[in-house]
Amino acid sequence: MLYDVIIIGSGPAGLAAAIYAQRAELNSLIIEKNPMSGGQIINTYEVDNYPGFPGISGFELAEKFRSHCDGLGAQFVTGDVTKFEIVDGIKKITVDNNEVYEAKTAIISTGAAYRKLGVDGEQQLSGMGVSYCATCDGAFFRNKTTVVVGGGDVAVEDAIFLARLCKKVYVVHRRHEFRAAKSLCNRLLSMENVEIIWDSVVDKIEGSDLVQAVQITNRETQEHRRIETDGVFIAVGNIPNSDVYKGVVELDTAGYIVAGEDCETSIPGVFAAGDIRTKPLKQIITAASDGANAITAVEKYLNNLA
Amino acid sequence: MLYDVIIIGSGPAGLAAAIYAQRAELNSLIIEKNPMSGGQIINTYEVDNYPGFPGISGFELAEKFRSHCDGLGAQFVTGDVTKFEIVDGIKKITVDNNEVYEAKTAIISTGAAYRKLGVDGEQQLSGMGVSYCATCDGAFFRNKTTVVVGGGDVAVEDAIFLARLCKKVYVVHRRHEFRAAKSLCNRLLSMENVEIIWDSVVDKIEGSDLVQAVQITNRETQEHRRIETDGVFIAVGNIPNSDVYKGVVELDTAGYIVAGEDCETSIPGVFAAGDIRTKPLKQIITAASDGANAITAVEKYLNNLA
Repeated sequence: MLYDVIIIGSGPAGLAAAIYAQRAELNSLIIEKNPMSGGQIINTYEVDNYPGFPGISGFELAEKFRSHCDGLGAQFVTGDVTKFEIVDGIKKITVDNNEVYEAKTAIISTGAAYRKLGVDGEQQLSGMGVSYCATCDGAFFRNKTTVVVGGGDVAVEDAIFLARLCKKVYVVHRRHEFRAAKSLCNRLLSMENVEIIWDSVVDKIEGSDLVQAVQITNRETQEHRRIETDGVFIAVGNIPNSDVYKGVVELDTAGYIVAGEDCETSIPGVFAAGDIRTKPLKQIITAASDGANAITAVEKYLNNLA
Repeated sequence: MLYDVIIIGSGPAGLAAAIYAQRAELNSLIIEKNPMSGGQIINTYEVDNYPGFPGISGFELAEKFRSHCDGLGAQFVTGDVTKFEIVDGIKKITVDNNEVYEAKTAIISTGAAYRKLGVDGEQQLSGMGVSYCATCDGAFFRNKTTVVVGGGDVAVEDAIFLARLCKKVYVVHRRHEFRAAKSLCNRLLSMENVEIIWDSVVDKIEGSDLVQAVQITNRETQEHRRIETDGVFIAVGNIPNSDVYKGVVELDTAGYIVAGEDCETSIPGVFAAGDIRTKPLKQIITAASDGANAITAVEKYLNNLA
């Protein structure tokens, strides 16, 4: 069976692509790593910024996307892609049970994972005060205290964003200066409710049901400090799930697949949608938009094949 | 009052921007032309491709977007923008009752209108078989007969798309050749269930509750013909609602505001979101995505102002 399109990954980008593929009557298949569709959002406690669904749980939103696909007859298989090759223009996709699927086009929507600190309490309190996305979750911490961990552009932007909402924002950074743009740093440093804790790392996040405090250590002085807080925003980078595609399509230095708004990669007939691609803003709504754009690009490509 | 951001237009792009603006605690205002939010979608009979809401009416989806905004405390005023100026970096927006609103940034999300044929039956049967978007509505015509009107890229793409779903597709074009890309035309001409009716125009669309037939005239021979059909897809262009912004921000030759995925226009602090901007695919989901991207761009701009 040669599919028109195989969609790899079933987060918001992949599921939106599946919806558009079904409505376009493309002969399509979605390969998902986990039998539960939704990608990162299934672990999101509350989603409040996908227009139309205020305050929905990530799990429930994922189910709604999936049932939308099912209603249109989309076909899913579970498998972890281990090899991605192009042979005479055909996209050959091997999964971990050695099954090989073939298609005229492929959409890579395998997403990215937030880089973890790897400290006590982080995983247990994820979604219960520990967050990796200020744009997504910041609004839940209005007039509360938060700690931002990191020192790059995203960390500094997150801290500025949170400082406008929160009573108090601490920024814990392992070095003595930020890596972010100067203008951003100046803005952050000028905000009265922000305290920067330089040269320090988080050792532990405390709390039973909800985050209560973080324990930090100064790397220079070895001094310990405990800060009571309602939230911890971890902004120490992302890990794109692109290992399998290295050497096949062009990646940027951080490992994202280079692709613009039309989702076209360096290889004709291979498209990248959602968090895996180089893009300005990684959100559910922008990922879903990519799914629609990617299928439109697939259709254009198929129209030119004939 | 100097707002952080004024959002002009309350279609999916403007409403998504309002959601993101509220969650970012920006001091914002939405100016909408009609007291009913939603833009073009309020006249859409059924929307089946906004992920999560299969088969919802456009009206109901618009209400869900609006109530999402209201729940977050977004502030709306009704007014038709008559003048848009930039004075010392401040965006000054005048509406038809001569009220002037001022902001540090503006998001133009005024949308576009489909160009109409202006024939009998067109308006009455809009949404009841008459459609201006094959990607949106094509799936409702599976195994049915449709007529596509037009001869540009969009018309030919629509006809190819529909020919894969429909029993029979007629393409009515006023000239003797298409203006679309050669490869697209070849593909269309090779499809067995497609009949091209050259040199012809639609005079009337027949039907009481649903489209039943179109009446056409050959411009060369003056011959009349009547074609029974379930749907009429009109693809004769769009009219961007950008008159007020001409001479202020850069427009392309068709009148769209030139802006990429980050929604940045030629003027710092002025952003374009949704159907009004130059973009590959005009859909509810891509418009809503623009709203999120535009607010992120607004935040970056404001961060650099300080």
